[in-house]
Amino acid sequence: MEALRDAACAARGSMMMMMLVWILLNAAAGLSAEERGMVEELGTEKEAEESHRQDSVNLLTFISLLTLTILTIWLFKHRRVRFLHETGLAMIYGLLVGVILRYGIPAASYHNKTPPSCSLKEGPSSTLLLNVSGKFFEYTLKGEINFKEIHNVEQNDMLRKVTFDPEVFFNILLPPIIFHAGYSLKKRHFFRNLGSIITYAFLGTAISCFFIGNLMYGVVKLMRAVGQLTDKFYYTDCLFFGAIISATDPVTVLAIFNELHADGDLYALLFGESVMNDAVAIVLSSSIMAYQPAGANTHMFDASAFFKSVGIFLGIFSGSFVMGAATGVVTALVTKFTKLHCFPLLETALFFLMSWSTFLLAEACGFTGVVAVLFCGITQAHYTYNNLSEESTKRTKQLFEVLHFLAENFIFSYMGLALFTFQKHVFSPIFIAGAFMAIFLGRALNIYPLSFLLNLGRRDKIRGNFQHMMMFAGLRGAMAFALAIRDTATYARQMMFTTTLLIVFFTVWVFGGGTTPMLSWLHIRVGVDPDQDVQPSGDSFQVLQGDGPQEDGQSKTKQESAWLFRLWYTFDHNYLKPILTHSGPPLTSTLPSYCGPLASCLTSPRAYENQEQLRDPDNDFVHNDADLTFTFGDTSITANGASASRTDAAGGPGWSANGKRSGSTSEEALERELDSREQELLSRGTRLVFPMEEHV
Amino acid sequence: MEALRDAACAARGSMMMMMLVWILLNAAAGLSAEERGMVEELGTEKEAEESHRQDSVNLLTFISLLTLTILTIWLFKHRRVRFLHETGLAMIYGLLVGVILRYGIPAASYHNKTPPSCSLKEGPSSTLLLNVSGKFFEYTLKGEINFKEIHNVEQNDMLRKVTFDPEVFFNILLPPIIFHAGYSLKKRHFFRNLGSIITYAFLGTAISCFFIGNLMYGVVKLMRAVGQLTDKFYYTDCLFFGAIISATDPVTVLAIFNELHADGDLYALLFGESVMNDAVAIVLSSSIMAYQPAGANTHMFDASAFFKSVGIFLGIFSGSFVMGAATGVVTALVTKFTKLHCFPLLETALFFLMSWSTFLLAEACGFTGVVAVLFCGITQAHYTYNNLSEESTKRTKQLFEVLHFLAENFIFSYMGLALFTFQKHVFSPIFIAGAFMAIFLGRALNIYPLSFLLNLGRRDKIRGNFQHMMMFAGLRGAMAFALAIRDTATYARQMMFTTTLLIVFFTVWVFGGGTTPMLSWLHIRVGVDPDQDVQPSGDSFQVLQGDGPQEDGQSKTKQESAWLFRLWYTFDHNYLKPILTHSGPPLTSTLPSYCGPLASCLTSPRAYENQEQLRDPDNDFVHNDADLTFTFGDTSITANGASASRTDAAGGPGWSANGKRSGSTSEEALERELDSREQELLSRGTRLVFPMEEHV
Repeated sequence: MEALRDAACAARGSMMMMMLVWILLNAAAGLSAEERGMVEELGTEKEAEESHRQDSVNLLTFISLLTLTILTIWLFKHRRVRFLHETGLAMIYGLLVGVILRYGIPAASYHNKTPPSCSLKEGPSSTLLLNVSGKFFEYTLKGEINFKEIHNVEQNDMLRKVTFDPEVFFNILLPPIIFHAGYSLKKRHFFRNLGSIITYAFLGTAISCFFIGNLMYGVVKLMRAVGQLTDKFYYTDCLFFGAIISATDPVTVLAIFNELHADGDLYALLFGESVMNDAVAIVLSSSIMAYQPAGANTHMFDASAFFKSVGIFLGIFSGSFVMGAATGVVTALVTKFTKLHCFPLLETALFFLMSWSTFLLAEACGFTGVVAVLFCGITQAHYTYNNLSEESTKRTKQLFEVLHFLAENFIFSYMGLALFTFQKHVFSPIFIAGAFMAIFLGRALNIYPLSFLLNLGRRDKIRGNFQHMMMFAGLRGAMAFALAIRDTATYARQMMFTTTLLIVFFTVWVFGGGTTPMLSWLHIRVGVDPDQDVQPSGDSFQVLQGDGPQEDGQSKTKQESAWLFRLWYTFDHNYLKPILTHSGPPLTSTLPSYCGPLASCLTSPRAYENQEQLRDPDNDFVHNDADLTFTFGDTSITANGASASRTDAAGGPGWSANGKRSGSTSEEALERELDSREQELLSRGTRLVFPMEEHV
Repeated sequence: MEALRDAACAARGSMMMMMLVWILLNAAAGLSAEERGMVEELGTEKEAEESHRQDSVNLLTFISLLTLTILTIWLFKHRRVRFLHETGLAMIYGLLVGVILRYGIPAASYHNKTPPSCSLKEGPSSTLLLNVSGKFFEYTLKGEINFKEIHNVEQNDMLRKVTFDPEVFFNILLPPIIFHAGYSLKKRHFFRNLGSIITYAFLGTAISCFFIGNLMYGVVKLMRAVGQLTDKFYYTDCLFFGAIISATDPVTVLAIFNELHADGDLYALLFGESVMNDAVAIVLSSSIMAYQPAGANTHMFDASAFFKSVGIFLGIFSGSFVMGAATGVVTALVTKFTKLHCFPLLETALFFLMSWSTFLLAEACGFTGVVAVLFCGITQAHYTYNNLSEESTKRTKQLFEVLHFLAENFIFSYMGLALFTFQKHVFSPIFIAGAFMAIFLGRALNIYPLSFLLNLGRRDKIRGNFQHMMMFAGLRGAMAFALAIRDTATYARQMMFTTTLLIVFFTVWVFGGGTTPMLSWLHIRVGVDPDQDVQPSGDSFQVLQGDGPQEDGQSKTKQESAWLFRLWYTFDHNYLKPILTHSGPPLTSTLPSYCGPLASCLTSPRAYENQEQLRDPDNDFVHNDADLTFTFGDTSITANGASASRTDAAGGPGWSANGKRSGSTSEEALERELDSREQELLSRGTRLVFPMEEHV
């Protein structure tokens, strides 16, 4: 009853907000029409003021949209609606406002006036001077413009105003999203599945990119054959499309996973993959762009240009990685060696600035800021986080949470808006149909073969239902959109942009909305407490599934991966953590004796005092929702006893005895390592191998 | 010993950061020189990339500066250095980088090339088309340019790049600063001194503005007489200078007050005045701008234009006020009637967006966003704050704290930078000397006469030492700078900008640094616990000072002000708080019976359940520093027993019995009002008077 009243109130509020948006937009249109008459007389000052007012109205429109989205999200959460996620919602509101902008506001209020033009023989320079009877005015280049569009430059002004500079997405909106992703990676699950995540993200994205690129090239040829193509569309354009559309963004899926507390490993696989393949897609697309000019006019395959592109890919990726990790390390050192934790405000500000400077530093050096920020986030979460004061850890987490939330919803509502307000859409039914087919096939070629290969080497198999869920979770989102809108100058790019937009809409609404039924249909366990999930390591669960014989066959591979993991873990625990944080064993005990003075200088006094374990950030992981309700009563029965295993694991210590043998979770590794000194000697012997390992 | 080591480490770190900044800047210069050769060939794409890289380097420079500032602030706080505040520090670092940019980077790397120009007969339009052999390019107007500057458009590119769009200060950096100020006003002290604050802020700023304006007009006439003036400088320009330089910003002083826990009333007077006079100065300066065109060519006094300006002032100010308060009220209603407090993230995001939309809404309607944001902050703190969940109250406070901190330090380091990198400085010794004299005299004419008048009506006098401290605390800061840089097109404005910059430097360094000695010299009590300070109301303290006879003489005035305060308080407590928050008495008991259905609809269910008092946000006021050290041992002796009174008040209940008679603090009013019903009936009888009161 009360809930109904709330809902009614909220609905009324939403209506009022929509009306407000409408009134604002109309007012803006009216104002500009009215004041436009005076502009010519009062000159540029008045015009600047008007432009500023218009900007305010535009931003206000977006903010109203976001406010509306937030209120509706609340309503949905309140009523436990899961068929539509907040991002989908933001898109719908964006669409509505886009329709209003496009069709609702009378275009007659603008006069059709062609701006003055002048001719020059030289190519366009960034700055142009205009001499009006002795007075000089400075103009900046905005971009090339089609001849046929010249006459509606002014007419389209309103719609164009709403169009943001695409670089805003890359430089302002994406960094907090990606940083937050890196910062909130559930590290234990992430590191446990690191090999698989990297395989999916690198190899899988590459497969998907080249498959989609080639298939689309076929589609483009078909279009040319049936006369549907009106302008150039090169092979590299197709590959570029493959790169941008291969960046998955299962934000909707993951939000539901988080809410339902779905399986931690699956979550880690999906989240890790999507975060990493965003990075891969950015670098891949810029490598393909770099390939383009090399081939002169042919746009055909050229081996040297190809290897150059591969080189660029590796260079940019590793450069960005190193830059991100380095800033993270510097922040860790600064927060360790200053006593900044007495002043949480300073600490938070420093943390924020250092994270941002990673982005800028990478961009200034010609690397990719977004990728650097991702690795900075991971490094910060792993080291710096432990040096921050209790209050700052909360502050930074919440700060980035809010920024992430706002940025994400902004991008999605902008996407909705862009469908109607973007000026240069090229809808091509054949291309769109081809692209939809291509992304599904590309995703399948990524997930199934790679899962098969990975399962050969994995102790805990990626089961069929996990694979289907990963296939299903191949949504496209913010990154694909941002990459597509970055350059919409040519016909090919415009067609790609339109298609990308439609793919994002479709996948977010249909796949995003279908996540909950799909989870139920695939019998994936939900209601897993992430803290308790730690105890039953992957294989103890496997055993319960009756996969025992298979496990024995994999013992060698298992040993190998465990050895790799242990190497990294030991190095990190013995050297990196003591250097960069206040925890871990004192360096004086782990470093050889001739490093004595250095070791004692680097070791924190606290390391001697409390040899206690690092407090693990995973435990602090903030869950947005407190409603841990199990909607699927059938899961406990159908999921092969998964729920039973969970209960047992939480209750009885028997499993940990079993799990001890396998030695793969970090807790156990830590225990073992603290128990025996031999292992440390072993790792000391192989220290030369570490520099490679360090970057994994 | 350890502190020394820390200091040494931090100093080394600072050196390294400075070197990094230097390297970055040189690298940027080198890069651009190197790549500039290729620009012509590869066209605009390459140029855009270069420009993006340059932007990144610039931002990175600022971020490095801020990082450096934070580290040095830490060092200063750590070592309890108080002669230089963080803002002064930020300016110094800015100055250093400015010097490097100006003199350190070889200008030879740029070629002196005049950009292409073309001629038109019409006036400049915002958009210009360029026809280069059939291809059309769109250009946007950047601004007018001096003929003599044409040849170094490219040469100055580096320095100009560092120059931010002045609107950035108004639209991005000032709003969080001002909002935070409003949001963190210590409300009890603020409301207690509201009358005085408004008098200083409105009347005082107007006096100061007109005095400075007229004095400067004399100075300008003198300059013309001695031939020091090379261009036009009107009377309205002088008034404009008076307006921008009248905005005080005692950020340094207040930070020290906060740290030393100086007297709460003095803090409220200074803080309230500076916050409000920022708002007054903005509106005043735009009113003066509006006056300018009305007088055609004469620029002399014109009664109708003057009254028009006064009308504009009142219109803009009240419009901004209403807009800010309205958004605050809407947010309060939304947070009250939705159960958003279950989802702190949504709540914080909503709060942030609503506060921001105040700014945009006001700008879109032609009012002043900064002023609206101030009143929005005050309203939010008074109502919305109480509806937020425990976590959100913390989150929002911290979020705005960080934003405020970053924005403020950014502005101050930019000021340092601007001294050397701004291109159009006009240093005029006579004008500067005149301005310095004018601001001191203007401040004196503001504080002393108004204090005398206010003391006639005040129960607790503003004593001489408070007046001297207020005089001393007349620093100029962010607002004066932002107003001065907003328009630097004419010669007069350039001279004003240069002078403003120097005044800011001088006042922040000298007066800011002198705050601690000054407090000691003026015997102003420090170490006041703001929570305990509540109990001894102003007059119980007065009595202790032996001002008894004087107090009797003021009993009528005292009654009046108490009556006004009580009216507002009762209205707020009985109607506004129950409508806008979950607390206060249920509306069903305060509203007349015929409003029954409305009252029960508006009253929160919680209001019936717990008639407990509003939790007062002042108690949650976050102190940045935990070091409550009393540096002034002599204060307890010299401050007329102030410390003794504090101790007594905290210990014994005798004072509250005494204080009950006066009935001016909100606690006591609340108590009384809950005790007796008659008063409520009284307030019901005078309800028609309220609409005026509501806006105070």
